[in-house]
Amino acid sequence: MVFLPHRHQVQYYETDQMGVVHHSNYIRWFEEARVFFMDQMGFGYDEMEKAGVFSPVIEAHCTYRSSVRFHDQVLVFARIEQCSGVRLTVSYRVIDADDHTLRAEGETRHCFLNRQGRPVSLKKENPAVFRLFEALVGQDNESFIAGQPG
Amino acid sequence: MVFLPHRHQVQYYETDQMGVVHHSNYIRWFEEARVFFMDQMGFGYDEMEKAGVFSPVIEAHCTYRSSVRFHDQVLVFARIEQCSGVRLTVSYRVIDADDHTLRAEGETRHCFLNRQGRPVSLKKENPAVFRLFEALVGQDNESFIAGQPG
Amino acid sequence: MVFLPHRHQVQYYETDQMGVVHHSNYIRWFEEARVFFMDQMGFGYDEMEKAGVFSPVIEAHCTYRSSVRFHDQVLVFARIEQCSGVRLTVSYRVIDADDHTLRAEGETRHCFLNRQGRPVSLKKENPAVFRLFEALVGQDNESFIAGQPG
Amino acid sequence: MVFLPHRHQVQYYETDQMGVVHHSNYIRWFEEARVFFMDQMGFGYDEMEKAGVFSPVIEAHCTYRSSVRFHDQVLVFARIEQCSGVRLTVSYRVIDADDHTLRAEGETRHCFLNRQGRPVSLKKENPAVFRLFEALVGQDNESFIAGQPG
Repeated sequence: MVFLPHRHQVQYYETDQMGVVHHSNYIRWFEEARVFFMDQMGFGYDEMEKAGVFSPVIEAHCTYRSSVRFHDQVLVFARIEQCSGVRLTVSYRVIDADDHTLRAEGETRHCFLNRQGRPVSLKKENPAVFRLFEALVGQDNESFIAGQPG
Repeated sequence: MVFLPHRHQVQYYETDQMGVVHHSNYIRWFEEARVFFMDQMGFGYDEMEKAGVFSPVIEAHCTYRSSVRFHDQVLVFARIEQCSGVRLTVSYRVIDADDHTLRAEGETRHCFLNRQGRPVSLKKENPAVFRLFEALVGQDNESFIAGQPG
Repeated sequence: MVFLPHRHQVQYYETDQMGVVHHSNYIRWFEEARVFFMDQMGFGYDEMEKAGVFSPVIEAHCTYRSSVRFHDQVLVFARIEQCSGVRLTVSYRVIDADDHTLRAEGETRHCFLNRQGRPVSLKKENPAVFRLFEALVGQDNESFIAGQPG
Repeated sequence: MVFLPHRHQVQYYETDQMGVVHHSNYIRWFEEARVFFMDQMGFGYDEMEKAGVFSPVIEAHCTYRSSVRFHDQVLVFARIEQCSGVRLTVSYRVIDADDHTLRAEGETRHCFLNRQGRPVSLKKENPAVFRLFEALVGQDNESFIAGQPG
């Protein structure tokens, strides 16, 4: 399976008075990339919620490497780092779409909840999706960069 | 009943690269003021949703009079302009908390929905809250300004 | 010149606990569409700011017609309604990208400021961009819909 | 010096369709608390920027312990963990204002930039503020909790 990175066009409302993107937005871009990754997996996050499994963030981390400005385009690469039945770890790399400079790196950790908000094992609740995540651990979409015009 | 205006401390993340508050945030301040108004009414919006009545925005309007900057404090005055059984209109004035300069004015219009997302009449669904809104039409909290140190 | 509408993929962080997109985000989508429109004009908003002309919103209006949900795609059509030297009016239509249902309509009004924050006439400050806007008044990208698969 | 925690009233627009506060907002609350902390220090972040020193976030981390809902109030405790001339580390604890349940914990790291965006040493650029930060390392406002009615 070939996974494309998520492309984000930086919006004016994402900037702050320092003239660059406010740091809280990167956490949102991670979510955009995670959702896009699941779409490419063939099982979207919207479908997962409809199937009664929710996956809230229990930890988020971002290291900011260089500034992103209004009108820039960034590519966000998501990668499943780990998926046990009860925890999911996804890592992210944000790079400039033009010159591929690293802008930020980060990680989110997730648990799985049912409709009642009770922690569940994805392995038991939805074995098919669990196996998908498991099979994709470490799957890299960085190679995408090599082949693109930039 | 004396209604206080909602006091909002302007945050850094609300600014954009023009060095002032991004215009989309005022729509959020209107919501803050509306929620605070209902708290003072004695029937909070959280309780209204728990009682199964939702009140989405069907129209929003804002006129921006002068810029608001990081670290400013603004007062947002909300006023019920109209409440039929099926529609609610609330108007807002945003003023600088220090010198009372007018920053913005606006209005939101709302309908009422039940848990199933069907339009309902508040008058039938929750007559007590309807009568509260009705009794507060035109109720002004501007007089508050006169008496405050500023 | 053919103008494409702006395509927006609805994100999870744009929803609220009513299960639909929070109304404040539409004001942001209008900005996205305005920026995209100017990109297609051949003179982006980023270039306009670099040239020392800023165009803050002095009025915003939105009528919400039907709900937009997570994972939906919407098309936002922008249209220059009026451009005098000192004021710009842009209107917007938000439609579902799949079935073309109208989701929202709105308008923003803008003035022009120089780097010092003083109101200026775009006609004097940047006659070329002024003539572009003027030539595009009423230019419709709705026809785009007719020809697309949807 | 006694430092009060920052009190945040949770807004409707901060929720997402999971019915709880979207995780990106906590990063914003950290900023609110950091700004409030500096206000109490007697040298606000607005004054710091006016003095030509900017303090962007170079790393952010948050661990989410339990959900926060619309209409909740949270207290955010900020603590200076470290301040060298060139780096600042601030930690945060978010607790429910009513029952003091821990909601989240986190940390942000910052560098210092001058107006030209060049890294500077706060120690050299603004020794007075540097000494303030240094003197406050480890200063706890948790004791505040013990004495408050809750």
